[in-house]
Amino acid sequence: MSSKNKIEVCFTPATFEFFKNDNSIVIIVDILRATSSIVTAFMNGVNKIIPVATLEEAKNYKEKGFIVAAERDGITRDFADFGNSPYNFTSERVAEKDIVYSTTNGTNCIMLAKNSHEVLIGAYLNHQALIDHIVQKKKDILIFCAGWKNKFNLEDSLFAGSLSKALIKTGKFETNCDSAIASVDLWEVAGKNLISYIDKAAQRHRLARNGLDDVIEYCHSFDITSIIPILKDNYLIEISDL
Amino acid sequence: MSSKNKIEVCFTPATFEFFKNDNSIVIIVDILRATSSIVTAFMNGVNKIIPVATLEEAKNYKEKGFIVAAERDGITRDFADFGNSPYNFTSERVAEKDIVYSTTNGTNCIMLAKNSHEVLIGAYLNHQALIDHIVQKKKDILIFCAGWKNKFNLEDSLFAGSLSKALIKTGKFETNCDSAIASVDLWEVAGKNLISYIDKAAQRHRLARNGLDDVIEYCHSFDITSIIPILKDNYLIEISDL
Repeated sequence: MSSKNKIEVCFTPATFEFFKNDNSIVIIVDILRATSSIVTAFMNGVNKIIPVATLEEAKNYKEKGFIVAAERDGITRDFADFGNSPYNFTSERVAEKDIVYSTTNGTNCIMLAKNSHEVLIGAYLNHQALIDHIVQKKKDILIFCAGWKNKFNLEDSLFAGSLSKALIKTGKFETNCDSAIASVDLWEVAGKNLISYIDKAAQRHRLARNGLDDVIEYCHSFDITSIIPILKDNYLIEISDL
Repeated sequence: MSSKNKIEVCFTPATFEFFKNDNSIVIIVDILRATSSIVTAFMNGVNKIIPVATLEEAKNYKEKGFIVAAERDGITRDFADFGNSPYNFTSERVAEKDIVYSTTNGTNCIMLAKNSHEVLIGAYLNHQALIDHIVQKKKDILIFCAGWKNKFNLEDSLFAGSLSKALIKTGKFETNCDSAIASVDLWEVAGKNLISYIDKAAQRHRLARNGLDDVIEYCHSFDITSIIPILKDNYLIEISDL
């Protein structure tokens, strides 16, 4: 039997229960924009992020005096301090603070995966850092794409392909998972010209309609930080603070 | 607004509820092997196929004297007359008969989609016939991949890509669905060398382990029939018998 660790890719929260494995490391991916924003918040010195699945929970935290970032369908909710753009998570707003965060797709996934061996926040921004961490852990991994309202999306699947390819290239991982294989092959098609490929993605057009597509390039920038946010109990901290 | 009809692709039964649209034509796809077998059964003169989701239902039909094809995980069930290989549905066995059919993935999908405008059975075997029929219907379509136990699979997604590409090429269809776009791009990678690409698929290895992989080439043969099976009430008949 092979001693390599296994990679699986789950395309949407609706199928997470069929992949769930408490022994795996789960990497949550919501490139446009939740996981890119969470990584940015930690780059800007946030103390802790409390991800919540529902707007009701977010509102309750707001009433208790927390700073709350909350959106649905890309639009900041009235009661929230700000929305889901990584540009919102400035150091002026977040440094040394605890922030409550609720989005259409991404934050729900974090809570679904909470019983896994580790739950990490993945983005192009911390791509190499993820690889370095995962390789030394020697665990099977599940790349969990947030998708869009329980449907497959291109931008998260491409990231899954990019990460899978890099992990397989280390010689320490393999996959027999059809969705991982498809992700890698999509990455082979798209990776050389990522931004222009992303132009096909539905979410890119949703953001453009709301004037929120200024983040496409930033959210597809590789390796601008070595920070990895990780779930501890019910909140996210920097992995180096574990 | 564009007057073209829309194509969507659903990768697994677990996400069908997020795509469901009673005005659409749904094409059910389970290339290895249910939909290839159903098309073959009609080529060999079956009168009617009664798809059932559960083994209990299949057993009840058997007790009432019906001929039953039933498998789970590729293996024919004890109580059944035969299993899920297209080679089982010979004219000696099926001509002019009503056959009850239950499989791991595909037959469940047929029943999930039953309230759609039309439910058609799709395979490479009737690829061009499907296109000709769909083009003249002028309806939005949903290609519904059976997948594997609620996970994405390669062989059904590739068929979705092949069919989507051909429909878009007619100039009468378009898509803004990320899973349709991904399917077409996977087809571009795999289509030129389909059988060797399918070698990567998990189901191909599952079938090989059970000595059931003699059907790979047959199930990937284009246009050997113009028959389209269609759901009427709770059973499948030839569309020309509607």
